[in-house]
This record gives sequence, structure tokens and C-alpha cells, in this order.
Amino acid sequence: MKKNINIAVVGLGNVGSYLLNELNKKKKDIENKTGRKIYIAAVCARNKNKKRKFKINKKIFYQNPLKIIQNKKIDILFELIGKSDGISKKIVEESLKKKIHVITANKSLISKHGDYLSLLAEKNKVNLEFEASVAGGIPILRTIKDGLATNKIIKVVGILNGTSNYILTEMQNSNKNFDEVLKKAQSLGYAEPNPKFDLNGNDVLSKIKILSSLAFNKKISKFKNLMSGIENIELKDIRMANELGMKIKLLGITEIVDGKLFERVHPCLLKKESYIGNINGVMNAVILNGTPVGESVLQGEGAGPGPTSSSLMSDLLSVLRGNIKYPFGISYKNRNKINLYDVNKYNNSLYLRFEVIDKPGVLSQITKNLAKYKISIERLIQVPEHKKKTASIIIITHRTSEFNSRKCLKSFKLNKNILKFPTLIRLF
Amino acid sequence: MKKNINIAVVGLGNVGSYLLNELNKKKKDIENKTGRKIYIAAVCARNKNKKRKFKINKKIFYQNPLKIIQNKKIDILFELIGKSDGISKKIVEESLKKKIHVITANKSLISKHGDYLSLLAEKNKVNLEFEASVAGGIPILRTIKDGLATNKIIKVVGILNGTSNYILTEMQNSNKNFDEVLKKAQSLGYAEPNPKFDLNGNDVLSKIKILSSLAFNKKISKFKNLMSGIENIELKDIRMANELGMKIKLLGITEIVDGKLFERVHPCLLKKESYIGNINGVMNAVILNGTPVGESVLQGEGAGPGPTSSSLMSDLLSVLRGNIKYPFGISYKNRNKINLYDVNKYNNSLYLRFEVIDKPGVLSQITKNLAKYKISIERLIQVPEHKKKTASIIIITHRTSEFNSRKCLKSFKLNKNILKFPTLIRLF
Repeated sequence: MKKNINIAVVGLGNVGSYLLNELNKKKKDIENKTGRKIYIAAVCARNKNKKRKFKINKKIFYQNPLKIIQNKKIDILFELIGKSDGISKKIVEESLKKKIHVITANKSLISKHGDYLSLLAEKNKVNLEFEASVAGGIPILRTIKDGLATNKIIKVVGILNGTSNYILTEMQNSNKNFDEVLKKAQSLGYAEPNPKFDLNGNDVLSKIKILSSLAFNKKISKFKNLMSGIENIELKDIRMANELGMKIKLLGITEIVDGKLFERVHPCLLKKESYIGNINGVMNAVILNGTPVGESVLQGEGAGPGPTSSSLMSDLLSVLRGNIKYPFGISYKNRNKINLYDVNKYNNSLYLRFEVIDKPGVLSQITKNLAKYKISIERLIQVPEHKKKTASIIIITHRTSEFNSRKCLKSFKLNKNILKFPTLIRLF
Repeated sequence: MKKNINIAVVGLGNVGSYLLNELNKKKKDIENKTGRKIYIAAVCARNKNKKRKFKINKKIFYQNPLKIIQNKKIDILFELIGKSDGISKKIVEESLKKKIHVITANKSLISKHGDYLSLLAEKNKVNLEFEASVAGGIPILRTIKDGLATNKIIKVVGILNGTSNYILTEMQNSNKNFDEVLKKAQSLGYAEPNPKFDLNGNDVLSKIKILSSLAFNKKISKFKNLMSGIENIELKDIRMANELGMKIKLLGITEIVDGKLFERVHPCLLKKESYIGNINGVMNAVILNGTPVGESVLQGEGAGPGPTSSSLMSDLLSVLRGNIKYPFGISYKNRNKINLYDVNKYNNSLYLRFEVIDKPGVLSQITKNLAKYKISIERLIQVPEHKKKTASIIIITHRTSEFNSRKCLKSFKLNKNILKFPTLIRLF
């Protein structure tokens, strides 16, 4: 690689602005560590005249990122727009074709088009780096690709969404309900104005797909095997978990079961004193199980411009220091497709909460229906709300198959005494 | 780098043997990930005819490692003998001079001669990698050099010695004394026949020196700023810690204080429910504080041939994949010397245990002497042993300077009523 490197930063939101400042501040450090001098040759955002915290050299400002790579000699481009398609995909695609190294924080893009884009990078012999797309400042992708290279990884478990983890932690600590805590999270910048993809598990699923691909050296899976978020968790679930000596966490899990890929995202009940039960607030954590290394844990801040920039800068140094590397640690052709594990076979204990009309016979309707689907009960707690003449019935089941539990929960829809679809949390 | 790579493995103990097996098993995986084919061209150990668990090709067996590099074309050499000087140093030195990449697990060698050897590697444009020298399977050096590159790291805290951590954990869990637990550790292979350097803090200090150098981009420090091990910890300390809601852990800590380097290794009292209080058995953990990434934690198995091989293999892949990199992430000339923090200024609360003859006046002698050195007492517990007519006096002090506490503890030597030098554990 040559001595002087031209850099473009596309997207000047929180992350892009922070990164730009870091790049300027750390030019000397970067030169010491890599022997290369970097130049910010172009920046790009939708609005040229928007008030920003820092001065932007208007001579290098572009509104259309494609113009940058048409008009300027760029060596490395940061894509920080963040959509899975549209201009985000286009600029990454065109940059790679023009043999420009690309660094992105875009989990949607990589989890959807990562296979195609990695092939494009390979063909054009440039880097495509995306450390910042998973778990913020935790260098988890690099750890899998480099630090634990040649380990046979069999399972990855993570707390990968800071927004959800903050909300669950804050509900527990403040005893406030979901909506109130969500508003607080939004006011603090921990949740976006439209937090849908953070709360419904989608964000975690994107990250899990990237992790699966890296950990198991497979193509990115295209399916939602099992995904649910935290939107249906209520304060009463948090309280009940607390009474049971448990905490509720939104986990992303990927593992190979019987030679097949099983990816899932859902809230879990886990022991208060467990390691992962103590990852609180906006923190992220990833637990890897591999041979011969054993269990490895990485923990750190999962979001925010600082940690994200830390990962973007580590990608930059990797590009500046190194040879061309496979984006997923292994070439496109050596990453096989993998069959999906049949989620219906998955066996687990469940926490179920039924909201019911408090009258005789309802409980027996529930237990009878559970028995019909071979779901046996380990523990049952009934909490009446006398004023409303309703009750919450919480049931912890013995291990039951996903197939039976799904069919069973659906069948409750016909029961008028059950006021809403039961809340389901899986035991970890 | 060329396609076919000749490898030599020098040292066939537990780690060397395990590594050799891994190298043979993972040739295809390595080729997929790096595009290079590896060949085991030479192995070396003292005893050719020793019974080993695996077959060794005697045609490639050497007793003198220097003969290997004289007679064969080697590209990468693993040094797994493990001494700080002698043949370990010689073979690394000569290999680098002959432009052979070196990978080592040798913390004594690197912490003592790392500056000189890294300069030699730089001059000869080859890699010198030593991921396995610190924290076994945890890729902590790579994380600092690559994953968190350009972060300003201000503090590193670690549980870095699996033997010590196993002994402390096992004393707590089994309620057995130090000697008994040490014997068990030796029988399980968690402690060496001569465990001196594991138990006196020396092993941790070597690792801390390597971490300091990487984290702060400085030359390796040559001094023992503050080092003590766990040899003086007795079961009564473990029990007392437990009563106080604390645990005892041997920590290695390095930080920049007032622009100066403060490296230390000593047992600490920390809260039971703290993160680091829950790193048990042979596990290792490292906590990094950096800007902008915040606090990052890495945890994993700290010793044993499996985790160590995991790190050696990650070094191998780094060499096979990459350009020549600075061993300490930055060139020799850019790593400045750093002044040492004056340990006498260090202020901390202390746990002191005095073993005394149980007779009137002794306690007042102790408290009077503490007062003389301006050490004030936060808590005092006296536990008599009536049969022996002795007592343990445990004192938790308010913050006191290292200067005063050292002078004070020395002054107790003259007191015949105090039966041995007081046990000192620092509060974390």
C-alpha cells in the first residue's frame, strides 16, 4: 500500500461526526502505527448547511456520495448511512468495484448483502471491513477472525442490543413500566425515535447472522429461525422474574445443532447471579464456546459514537497495516451453505403469562389445554387483580417442544376468558 | 509471502505437543484462511527417545534448535522452551537475524528482552509474535494492537495467573489451607512442581510489563514497582474476607498516574459481587479502560495447552495472512521510555493481619504504632486462639500512603509480641 491515503467519510450523523474528529486528532498515531499518512479527501451528508458541532471544509463536501468516487481518487471509504439497500448499498458496491477499500458500521447491509459484497471485495482485491456492525466497541469480529482463528466455534451467545438491555435493566431498577422507561431511553439517546427494530429483535438477528457466518465459516443465512423482541415484556414479568431469583435479558444465540444452524433471538429468563444476568444498561457481551480455547467472554459498550468509532478506527488500521483479507475470514467459495435446524424440534422450559378474567374454571381450562399439548407444569403462580376482576397466571413449564408450545399458544386464541396472547419467555 | 511455508516447533512439552497436533489437524483450515500451505519441517526437544503420546517423525527431529536454522530453510519458528535467557533467547535471536518469523509463548523472554528482540525483528523485517505469553487463550495483545488500536488506554487490570486464582478459589470453596490446596493444584497440573514464580507474583509481573508496553506504547519497564504474591495468604484471611463480604484475588494492575507508569502485582480484597470477584478457578480476565471505547472486559481460560495453542495458532495465521507488523504495534523508536510513579505516594486502604501473643497491652502497642505512622483504623477484629494463647488481630485501615505503611510494618519487627511479619492485602 502506498504512503499517502485518501479517505472519504459518507454519512455525518453522530457516528460520522465523531469519527471525523478522531481521524483528525489521531493522524500522527495512525502514521506511527501503520507508516501511512491519511488525508480526509471528501465528506458526504444530505444537508450541506446543517448546523454541526464542528467545522466542515466545504470544499470537500458532497451531497451525493457517488460523485466522490467518480471525481476523486479515494483509497478508503467509510459508509455510515446505515440502510440495507438504496444509496448505502450502491456506494459500497461501486466503491468496491473501483477497488476502494470499504469500512462500514452497517449491520443491515452486511447481514442482507454481505455474501455478495464480500465476493465483490474478493474479486477486486480490496478490503470490506465491518467490525462496528456488531457489538459497538467490542472487537468481536476481529477476535473470531484473528484472535481465535482455527478454533472450532460451536456456540455464540450475546447481549447485542444496548437499547433493549437498557430498558430491561431500567424497568428492574426503577420499577417503572415499559413505556415510561422507553421514553427515558429516547430522551437519553439510548433509543431511537422509531425504536421498532431494536425492540422487536431484528437488530439482534442481523448481528447474529453476521456472527454465525464468521464463527461457523458459512454463508449468511436468509431466514428468521426464531425471533422475538422485548415489546411484550411488562413490569409484572420483571417483578415475577425477580421473585424467582431471575432476570430477563434479550439474547441472541447461534449454534450448530446436529450439523444444522440454529439462530435465535428472544427474551430469556436467567439466574440473577449468572455472568450474563449481570450485563446491565447499554453494555453488550458475547460468550463464545470453542475448541481448544474453551469459553471466552468479551464485554464492553455496545453502542454510541465513541465505541463505534473505536471499531471503525480498528478497521482502518487493519486496512492500512495489512494485506487484503477475506471479509469473513475465509474465501467466498469456501463458505458453504448450511441447513437450518428445525425449530419445531427445539426443546425448552418456558415462562408463560396469561392475562385472564378472574372466574372459576379458567385455570382448569388453561391447564387442561396445556396437558392436551403434552406441556407439563413445573410451577404455577396466580396473581389476582381484584379491582379489574382479572388475574395473571404465570406458569413455568418443564421442557417442551417448540412445535407443541406454538400450537398450544395459538389454540388459546379461541378462549374468550384469556384477554391477550400469552407472554412467552424462554428459560436459559 | 510465498505459498509453501516451512515451520519448526522448538520445545515439545505439553504446549508444543498439543500445538504440533493442531498444526497437523488444521492444515486445510489454515490454507483456506490464508492461502498458504504449511509443512512441519523440524521439531526439537531435549530427548529424542522420550515416550510421547504421539508419533514424531525422527527424520525431522533435532536436539539442538540452532542446527535447525543452520541446516534447513525455515520460514516460521515456534519457541516453546520458555526460559528468559540461554537457548530460548539464542534461538529467537538467531532466527530473527536469519529473517525467520518467530512465534513464542515465552513471557519471561519477552518481558526481559522484548525491546531488543522487537528491534531485531523490525530490522530484519520479520514478525515476532507472543500472544500466548499473556492470559492464555484470551487474545488480549491482539485486541490492544488491532481491535482497540488508536484508543488511548489508561488502565489495565487483570487476573493473569491461573495457578494463584485456582488456589484462592479452592481455599474459599473447600475451606482447606494453602498447602493442601497447592498439592491438589499440582496433582491436577494447575501448578508446577516448582510453583514459586506463579505464587510470588513474578509471573503476573512479566505479563503486566508486556501489557503496559502495548497499552501505553512505551518501552518495557525494568523495575519491580510493587510486587507481592499469595504465599502469605492463609485460610483465616479467606474466611475473614468472606465475613466482610469480600474475596481475595491476585491482581496485576498497570496505569498511568500523573504521566508516570505505575505497575503493581499484589493480592486485593474486592467485593464478592464485583465482576472480577467472580472470576474463579483457572480463569483469567482483563479489564481495559480506554477512550473512546470505555471499559472493555475479556475473559477466558488462562492456561493449559488448548488455550495456549489457540493463541499460538492465531499468531501463525497473523503471520501467514499479513504484512510485517511491529511486535508491539508501534516501531521501536516511537516507543518512548516512561518514568516510574513513586510507589511511596500510593494511597490505599489496607487489610492487615497481625499474629500476636494474647496478653494485655499488645493491641494497644499495635494501635499506638499505627497512629505514630498516621495510619487510622476503620475496623478492628480480634480473633483469639485460646489453646495457643495467641490471637489474630485484623485491621482495616483508612487510606494510607505506601511510604508510611511500609515503614510502620517494618517497625513491628522489633516487637516480640508480634509473632510474624503482618499479612498485608490491599483493598481494591
